[in-house]
Amino acid sequence: MSHGEQFTLYTHVGGPNGWKVAYLLAELRLTYESVFFDFAKKDQKSPEFLKLNPNGRIPAIIDHGNNDFVLWESNAILLYIVEKYDKEHKFSAVTDADKAYQNQWLFFQASGQGPYFGQFFWFQFYHQEKVPSAVERYKGETERVLGVLESVLSKQEWLVAGKMTISDISFISWNNGAFKAILGDDYPIAEKYPAVYKWHNAMTERPAIKACIEQRTSMMSH
Amino acid sequence: MSHGEQFTLYTHVGGPNGWKVAYLLAELRLTYESVFFDFAKKDQKSPEFLKLNPNGRIPAIIDHGNNDFVLWESNAILLYIVEKYDKEHKFSAVTDADKAYQNQWLFFQASGQGPYFGQFFWFQFYHQEKVPSAVERYKGETERVLGVLESVLSKQEWLVAGKMTISDISFISWNNGAFKAILGDDYPIAEKYPAVYKWHNAMTERPAIKACIEQRTSMMSH
Repeated sequence: MSHGEQFTLYTHVGGPNGWKVAYLLAELRLTYESVFFDFAKKDQKSPEFLKLNPNGRIPAIIDHGNNDFVLWESNAILLYIVEKYDKEHKFSAVTDADKAYQNQWLFFQASGQGPYFGQFFWFQFYHQEKVPSAVERYKGETERVLGVLESVLSKQEWLVAGKMTISDISFISWNNGAFKAILGDDYPIAEKYPAVYKWHNAMTERPAIKACIEQRTSMMSH
Repeated sequence: MSHGEQFTLYTHVGGPNGWKVAYLLAELRLTYESVFFDFAKKDQKSPEFLKLNPNGRIPAIIDHGNNDFVLWESNAILLYIVEKYDKEHKFSAVTDADKAYQNQWLFFQASGQGPYFGQFFWFQFYHQEKVPSAVERYKGETERVLGVLESVLSKQEWLVAGKMTISDISFISWNNGAFKAILGDDYPIAEKYPAVYKWHNAMTERPAIKACIEQRTSMMSH
């Protein structure tokens, strides 16, 4: 790699999972060069990329500051980055108990939020036939997941350790998608999930994360 | 709790995610009492259980050996158990790099294998209408995931660190379901995914894991 940044981030403009990694790298002021894949051209299934990630999905990283260490799965990448580069625990748990809770929420995001929200988009936009009952199912699951978050965040400001950690950060990009495209503009998010909405906005208003979101919006409109 | 075992494991006879935890506890010879939920009675949504796990799903554990520490999300539980009780790293990674790979495969299991295999079961058995194209989609995703595993396991015996770790263990129970119910009895698994099949059988033939599988089979038939 000749770009001179510490990380290469293989990602996609529209896909939520790559942006999680960008948010954390930006917050930690770690430098990275994004390689934006074109899914229409199947960039993510190229023989070159499959050598890095046999799953053929984004994101994947190369850490040029650590002998070109390669890793994929967005939440595993978040854990790697804080383990190695967040020694002050600005965005990560310190105690064994909090680390276990941090993992718990990361796995809930990875298994509960991402796939279900993702299946909504599949059946809404890409499936070969219209299946309203499937779209309804995943809209319902989206509301269920937001309800689980609300039940916790109505009693505490952050998911773990009393501060914003990678557990919170991991939920941002799929929630952005849910608020805009799954629930829709006239859905009363702030009334139905007030704590989730406040939590989400507190994160997206942070300058580093906001800049990533604006970069995405700008790229989507071109 | 008055059962005298170290852990309480909230689980379900048919659900794959609770068995992962049972496999590891059995391998490490840690004692546990299983509480098998009846989903028809919505045990998993009871106010009592929601206090332990606001997501209302199995598994969850209470570790009576650690001040009744409560945790949910099966793969977070696997990580907690090895962190605390596998000091010899019999089933867990040692180096920072291997720990990152261990996380990578755990997240691939949690986000790639579990949800997609699970959606097959949903559309095959529980959805309100028959949607053959949805069933086909998730059968195809099952084969894709097995293909990703095959591409790696054809070159190495285990996913991480040259030995069976929690990353491998996490795949067993959903693969059992895939082999029996998604792909079906006449599917040529051993020919199409020889390395996956060998890896899977090497794990399910281990006495501790085999005993759990036999317990499940026996309970399912009653």
